[in-house]
Amino acid sequence: MAHGAIKKVVLAYSGGLDTSVILKWLQIEYGCEVVTFTADIGQGEELEPARTKAQAAGVQEIYIDDLREEFVSDFVFPMFRANTLYEGEYLLGTSIARPLIAKRLIEIAAETGADAIAHGATGKGNDQVRFELTAYALNPEIKIIAPWREWDLLSREKLMAYAEQHGIAVEMKRDGTKSPYSMDANLLHISYEGYDLEDPWVEPGSDMWRWSVAPEQAPDQATTIEIGFEQGDPVAINGQRFSPAALLAELNRIGGANGIGRADLVENRYVGMKSRGCYETPGGTILLKAHRAMESLTLDREAAHLKDELMPRYASLVYNGYWFTPERNMLQVAIDETQKVVNGEVRLRLYKGNVMVVGRKSASNSLFDAAIATFEEDAGAYNQADATGFIRLNALRLRVAGRQRG
Amino acid sequence: MAHGAIKKVVLAYSGGLDTSVILKWLQIEYGCEVVTFTADIGQGEELEPARTKAQAAGVQEIYIDDLREEFVSDFVFPMFRANTLYEGEYLLGTSIARPLIAKRLIEIAAETGADAIAHGATGKGNDQVRFELTAYALNPEIKIIAPWREWDLLSREKLMAYAEQHGIAVEMKRDGTKSPYSMDANLLHISYEGYDLEDPWVEPGSDMWRWSVAPEQAPDQATTIEIGFEQGDPVAINGQRFSPAALLAELNRIGGANGIGRADLVENRYVGMKSRGCYETPGGTILLKAHRAMESLTLDREAAHLKDELMPRYASLVYNGYWFTPERNMLQVAIDETQKVVNGEVRLRLYKGNVMVVGRKSASNSLFDAAIATFEEDAGAYNQADATGFIRLNALRLRVAGRQRG
Amino acid sequence: MAHGAIKKVVLAYSGGLDTSVILKWLQIEYGCEVVTFTADIGQGEELEPARTKAQAAGVQEIYIDDLREEFVSDFVFPMFRANTLYEGEYLLGTSIARPLIAKRLIEIAAETGADAIAHGATGKGNDQVRFELTAYALNPEIKIIAPWREWDLLSREKLMAYAEQHGIAVEMKRDGTKSPYSMDANLLHISYEGYDLEDPWVEPGSDMWRWSVAPEQAPDQATTIEIGFEQGDPVAINGQRFSPAALLAELNRIGGANGIGRADLVENRYVGMKSRGCYETPGGTILLKAHRAMESLTLDREAAHLKDELMPRYASLVYNGYWFTPERNMLQVAIDETQKVVNGEVRLRLYKGNVMVVGRKSASNSLFDAAIATFEEDAGAYNQADATGFIRLNALRLRVAGRQRG
Amino acid sequence: MAHGAIKKVVLAYSGGLDTSVILKWLQIEYGCEVVTFTADIGQGEELEPARTKAQAAGVQEIYIDDLREEFVSDFVFPMFRANTLYEGEYLLGTSIARPLIAKRLIEIAAETGADAIAHGATGKGNDQVRFELTAYALNPEIKIIAPWREWDLLSREKLMAYAEQHGIAVEMKRDGTKSPYSMDANLLHISYEGYDLEDPWVEPGSDMWRWSVAPEQAPDQATTIEIGFEQGDPVAINGQRFSPAALLAELNRIGGANGIGRADLVENRYVGMKSRGCYETPGGTILLKAHRAMESLTLDREAAHLKDELMPRYASLVYNGYWFTPERNMLQVAIDETQKVVNGEVRLRLYKGNVMVVGRKSASNSLFDAAIATFEEDAGAYNQADATGFIRLNALRLRVAGRQRG
Repeated sequence: MAHGAIKKVVLAYSGGLDTSVILKWLQIEYGCEVVTFTADIGQGEELEPARTKAQAAGVQEIYIDDLREEFVSDFVFPMFRANTLYEGEYLLGTSIARPLIAKRLIEIAAETGADAIAHGATGKGNDQVRFELTAYALNPEIKIIAPWREWDLLSREKLMAYAEQHGIAVEMKRDGTKSPYSMDANLLHISYEGYDLEDPWVEPGSDMWRWSVAPEQAPDQATTIEIGFEQGDPVAINGQRFSPAALLAELNRIGGANGIGRADLVENRYVGMKSRGCYETPGGTILLKAHRAMESLTLDREAAHLKDELMPRYASLVYNGYWFTPERNMLQVAIDETQKVVNGEVRLRLYKGNVMVVGRKSASNSLFDAAIATFEEDAGAYNQADATGFIRLNALRLRVAGRQRG
Repeated sequence: MAHGAIKKVVLAYSGGLDTSVILKWLQIEYGCEVVTFTADIGQGEELEPARTKAQAAGVQEIYIDDLREEFVSDFVFPMFRANTLYEGEYLLGTSIARPLIAKRLIEIAAETGADAIAHGATGKGNDQVRFELTAYALNPEIKIIAPWREWDLLSREKLMAYAEQHGIAVEMKRDGTKSPYSMDANLLHISYEGYDLEDPWVEPGSDMWRWSVAPEQAPDQATTIEIGFEQGDPVAINGQRFSPAALLAELNRIGGANGIGRADLVENRYVGMKSRGCYETPGGTILLKAHRAMESLTLDREAAHLKDELMPRYASLVYNGYWFTPERNMLQVAIDETQKVVNGEVRLRLYKGNVMVVGRKSASNSLFDAAIATFEEDAGAYNQADATGFIRLNALRLRVAGRQRG
Repeated sequence: MAHGAIKKVVLAYSGGLDTSVILKWLQIEYGCEVVTFTADIGQGEELEPARTKAQAAGVQEIYIDDLREEFVSDFVFPMFRANTLYEGEYLLGTSIARPLIAKRLIEIAAETGADAIAHGATGKGNDQVRFELTAYALNPEIKIIAPWREWDLLSREKLMAYAEQHGIAVEMKRDGTKSPYSMDANLLHISYEGYDLEDPWVEPGSDMWRWSVAPEQAPDQATTIEIGFEQGDPVAINGQRFSPAALLAELNRIGGANGIGRADLVENRYVGMKSRGCYETPGGTILLKAHRAMESLTLDREAAHLKDELMPRYASLVYNGYWFTPERNMLQVAIDETQKVVNGEVRLRLYKGNVMVVGRKSASNSLFDAAIATFEEDAGAYNQADATGFIRLNALRLRVAGRQRG
Repeated sequence: MAHGAIKKVVLAYSGGLDTSVILKWLQIEYGCEVVTFTADIGQGEELEPARTKAQAAGVQEIYIDDLREEFVSDFVFPMFRANTLYEGEYLLGTSIARPLIAKRLIEIAAETGADAIAHGATGKGNDQVRFELTAYALNPEIKIIAPWREWDLLSREKLMAYAEQHGIAVEMKRDGTKSPYSMDANLLHISYEGYDLEDPWVEPGSDMWRWSVAPEQAPDQATTIEIGFEQGDPVAINGQRFSPAALLAELNRIGGANGIGRADLVENRYVGMKSRGCYETPGGTILLKAHRAMESLTLDREAAHLKDELMPRYASLVYNGYWFTPERNMLQVAIDETQKVVNGEVRLRLYKGNVMVVGRKSASNSLFDAAIATFEEDAGAYNQADATGFIRLNALRLRVAGRQRG
C-alpha cells in the first residue's frame, strides 16, 4: 500500500485497543515516526499506562498533558454562557472537547516538526469532522490521517486479529468483561452509543450508566446548593471558590449522587444520519439551569431573547466542529458582551433527578425591581395609564389591516 | 366622571370579587348595558355561580361557554408543535389562553351589538396587552375598557370597600382563608404571582402549589406511558384515543400525581419589568418532552434546526399577545408544514418530577436508519471515504484564511 | 477503466463541445446507453442542432423540452416572492435553474428506465451540488456520473484533442471566435466567469456583456412602466397581461435596452472558495425593485421584517442547491402565506441603468392610511398622546438598568 | 395649565419656527429656565443665527456644538459596518443622528443641572421615540417634554399665529417661498415627507430634491473613484486620506454630482403606520456598495452570511431608536469583530445614478485564491474528487427521507 509521504505524525492516543492498533498501523503502512499525545480532560482514566504502552511501541516523543483547566475555562464555560443545547436536549459534552484536542495536536506537530496528525474517529461520526476542521483551521497545510476511513479493519473482530497478529496487548477489564457500548468521557459528560441503543424504541439496561445513580437510587432527602456566578461563569459552590475544573468536578459529584443529568436522545449527526445516544452530564445539567436563573435576574430582556435566538446556531457550530471559526467567534463576543452583568447567586434544590431553582439574587446587578413589579400599590413607580398608549400603538398596524379587510 | 359614550360592553367575567366590582363600576361609571362572558377553559371552577351573580347584578345577556376543546386544539396544540418555551423555561400557560377569550369577546360583541369590551387585567401585566391586541386585530373599531388603568381602586382594601358599599357579595373560601397569591388557571397550567414571590430569593411555601404533589410526595414507583402522535399532535395515551382537551386533562392527572411540571421563574414582561412567577404545567411538561422525542425520530435535521431557531421568536409572539397577526401566522404555517411526518409513539417514564424518554418509534415516518448508523459493518450503506471530501470542502474556506494569515 | 455497472444514463446535453465529449466518453467508458435531455429555459439558443448531434452520436432516446413557463412560474417567481439576494447582490439566475433541470433528469430516468444521470458541471463549482442534491432528494437510489470529477480531460486543449480523436464536430462561432468567458444563460440571466475576471481588480472589457447595453449607450429618455402584481407575482406590464415566461422576457427586453441589471461580484461558493462572476439580469433587477415596492404598500410591517430576516437563509438554500428540501419548503410556505395581499401596481422609471420606483398603489390591499400618516391635522385618526405610554413602557427596562448601574 | 414642576429644561433647538415657538411655550407654560442646544451634524445651515435668536428669547445657557466627526465616526461608520438597510432600501439617515443628539442633551442637562429635556418631534413619528429611548437609557430620571404631544398647536396656521402673538420672528426664504415638504438633513442624508408625498402613487416634482442632480442632469462621462478601507471603515478616496466627516462630505459631493442616492419609499414607522419618504443619500449609497465589495473579498463566507442574517434586526434597532441598548451592543461587537480584516481598496464607476463596482483588492487580507478558483488546470490546489463526498454526505438526510417516503 502506497500512502503519501508522511515523515512524522502526531497521534491522538488513549492507549486503548483502537489507538494502539492505529499506532502500529501507522508505523507499518506509512513507515513514519509516530508521536503520541494523550490528554487528561477528566475522562477518569489513568494516563501513565498510555506512556508505558507508547514506549513499548517504540515511540520516542510522548506527550501526556493535563488539559482539564483549559478545557473547562476556555471551552466548557464559554459554551455555557450561551445556554447551549443542541436540538433542545444535548449538552454537547463530546463536541466541546474535540477542538481542544485537535488544537493541541497541531501545537505538538509544530513543536516536533511533524507534518501530519492522526486520530481514531470513525468515518461515520461527528468527531472526525470536529478534529479535522480544527486542524485545518489552525494549520492549513497539515496532513491528516484518519485510519478508519482508509483501512479495512472495520469490525472489532478484525481489529482484535490485527492486534494479536502484531503483538498488541488487549486488556480486559478486571472482571473480564467490557461494556458493549461505545463510550466517551471527559469532565463534562460520559456518552454511550451502539449496541442495544441502535433500536431507538429499546430502553438501555440500568447497568449502562456509570456516572450517576438512577433517580430511584438517589437520596430521599433533597440537597440544596448555592452557586455563585461572576461574569456568567460559576466560581463558587456554597460560598467556597473552586477553579473551573474543580468546580465542574464537584458539580458532577453532587449531581451524580442525586441522579441528575441522564439523557436518552436521537440526534442528527453532521454527516447526515440520525443516531441514538445516551449521556450523563450531572454538573452540566445543574449548571445550565443555574446559569439561566442567574441571567433571568440580571440580563436585559432583549439581550436575553437575542441570545436565545442565536443559541441554536451556536450549538450547531459547536456540534459540527466549527469552534475555531470567524462565525463562532462573532457569536462568542456577542454572548460574552452580555455576561458582564451576570453576577450573583442561585439556590437550587437537587432531588432524585430534579434540579429546581428556588432562589436567585444579585447584590450588584439585579434588574428585578420589586417596587415596580408589586401587585400592591406602587407609589407611582409605574404609571398604569402608560399601558394604554403602549397597546394602542402596538395595535395600530393590526387595526389598519383590519379596516382594510373591511 | 365623564367617560366616552359606550352603549353596551361585553365583560370577561369570572364572578369573583374583581370582575364583580368591575361589573358594577361599568354600570355606574359608564351607565351602559353590560353583557357578561364566562369561559370554561379548564380552570376547574364551577361556572353556574357566575350566572347567578350576573343575574343578580341585573345582567340581561349572559354568556357561559365551554371552550376547552377549542382551547386545546386551536391554541395549545399548535403552540406545542413549535416546542415553545419562553425564555427557555416558561410553557406559556396563561399567554395562550388570552387570545381565545378575547376572540370570543369580540364575537359576542358582534352578536349582541356591543360597541365595547372590558376585562379585569391590570395595567402592569401582559394580559391586558394580549386581550387588547387580539381585540383590535379582530375588530379595529372596538372600544376597550380596562378599569384597572382608569379607576383608583388600586388595592384590595379599596376594592373590598367598593364591594361592600355597593352590596357586592364577597365570598370567602370555606375555611375562611384565601390564597395570598394571584392565581390563574386553565387546562394547560395554574400560575402564582405576588406575595412572598416578590422576593426572588425566597422559596414559596409548599402549600402554594395546587395541581401537583411535590416530587417528594410522589409514588416511589415510576409510571410508564406511551403517547401516540399524529401530524405533531398527541392523540392517544397508552393506545387509548382522547379528544384534545381530554388528553391534556389526562396528562395533567398523570403528571400531577408524579410531581411533574413545577417551575419557579423570573421572567421579562412585555411591559418592561421583570416579575417572578411559579407555574404548574404537568401535562404540558410531559407533552413538550414527548413531542421533541417524536420529532427527533421523524423530522429532517434542517427543518428541526430551523424550527429551533424560530421558536424563541414564536414564543415571544405568543407571550406578548400577537397570536392573531400575520407574523405568527407565517411562523405557524411553516411549523405546521413540518408536522405532517411527526407520527408515531413515544414511551416515557415519569418518576417524582422526572419525565424521561425511554423509547420512540414511527412505523410510517422514522428517519432513523440503523443500517447506516450502526457501529458494526454496514455492508456498504455508508461509504466512510465520503467523509474526507465532506470535511475537506467544509474546511476549504478556513484553510484559505489560515494561509492568508500566514 | 472499470466503472460501476450502469445500464442507461440520462445526460443533460446542450450539444456544445463539453457535453458532446461527455456523451462519447460515457459511451466508451461506461459502455452504456445514453439518453440526452436538452431543455429550453430561455438560454436563447436553438435546440434542434442538439437533436441532430445526438442522433449522429447514435442516441436513441432524445428529449428536448420547453421548460420556460415552468421555470418562471414554479422557480423564478416563488424565489422573487422572498426578495431573494445572495450576499446582498446576486439574483441567483444560475442557481434557480438547476433544480428544475435535475428534476427533469430524474423524471426522464424514470420514464426511460435509466439507472443514472450525468451532467457537465465541474468539480469546483456550485452546479454539481445543485444538480446532485436535487437528484438524490428526488430519487435516493439514482447513480450520478460527473465526468469532470472522474476524467483527466481537465483543460480545453485535452477536450479538443479528445473531440478530434473521436470525430466530434467542434463548431466555431461564425466569425471564428469564441467568448473567452465561461457563460450560462436562461430566462433570468446570463453569467460570465473565468478569463480576466479571475483577477478581481480587473474590469472586464465592454464587449463581454451580451444582454444589455451599457448605461452609457442606453436611451437619453427614461422609460416609464407599470407592473401589475397578483398575490406577489407580476402579471401585467402597462396593463397588458403576460404569461410568466413572456412577462420575464419582456422585462428583459425593456431592461436590457435601458442598461439595467449588470453586476460584477465576488461571491462565496458552497464548495469553499471565493469566485468572481459578472451577471446580466435585466428583468430580475426590475422585478426585485418592483416587488419590494408592492410589498411596502401592502405587507404588514412585522411580516415584512420577518421575511427580511429569513431571506438570507432562503438565498443560501437556493444558492447551495437545497430547493427540494423540507427547510426550503418551510420557508416557502411562510413566504407564500404573506403574498396573498401583495396586489396592485408599481410605476417605475428606467433610465440608463437606474430602476426608480415613482409610484405604487393597491385598490384592494393598501395599508397606507393617509388620514393617519398626514402631517396635517388628522381629525382624531391618531392620538399623539398614545406615544407617551408607548415610549415609556418600551424604555422601562432601559431605565431600570440605568438605575441599577447607578 | 398646570405642568409638573420643571426647573430647567434643555431644548434641542434649531432656531426655526417650530423650536422657536417651543422655546417660548416652555417659558410660558412651564415657567422654567430653558437651555438651548444646537448641533452641527452637517445639515448645512449656519448655526450662529440660532445663538442670536436664543439670546433674543432670553436664554442664558446656549450650547452650539460641532458634532460632525463624532456623528460619522461613532454612529454612521459603525452602522455601515453592518451594511445596514431598513426594509431593504432605507439607509437610516435620520435615525442614526437622533441618539447622538439625545446623548448630548443628557450631557448638557448634567452640566447645567437641568431636570428635563425637550424636543420638537411630533407624536406621530419615529424621532420622538429615538430621542426619548436614548434619554431614558442614559438618565432614567430625566423628565421629557414633547410639546407636540401636549399642546393644541397642531397645524402650521396655529403655530404661525402663536409666533405672531408672542413676537417670534418668522423667516421666509429669500424668495419668499418655503419648501412644502417636511425636511431633515445631516451629513448622511436629507429627507422629505408630507405634501404630495402623502399619496404614494404620486411622483414628487423634480424641484423637491436638493442634494443631488437628477441622473438625467449628471455628467455624460463616468467618474471613477477608489475608496480605501481600514478595518471596515473608509479612510481614503483616490489615495487621499480624509477624516470621517470630511470623507463622507466628499462622497456626498461626488455622488450628488453624479445623480446618485435618491430613494422614494413607503416605510413602516415604529409607531405603527406606513409613511412615504424620499431621501437623498449620495455618499451613503456609494459607501454601502463599496463596503460590501470590500467585504466580498476579505470576509469569511459564514461570517458574511451571519452578518446578513443579523442585519435586518440591527437595522430595526437603529430605526426604532434602540442605539444605546444591550442588544444593539451585542450585535455591534459581533459585527466589529469581523471588520478587522476588511482592509483594501474598491474601485467604482459612478455614472448618472449608477454605482458600479469594477474592482476590489486587498494586499493584506484577500481571501480570493485564484489558484483554487481558476477554470484552468490548478496544479492540485483543489481536488475535484472531494466534491463527491461533500455532496453525498450533504445529500444523505435527503436520501434517507426519500427512501422512507418509498
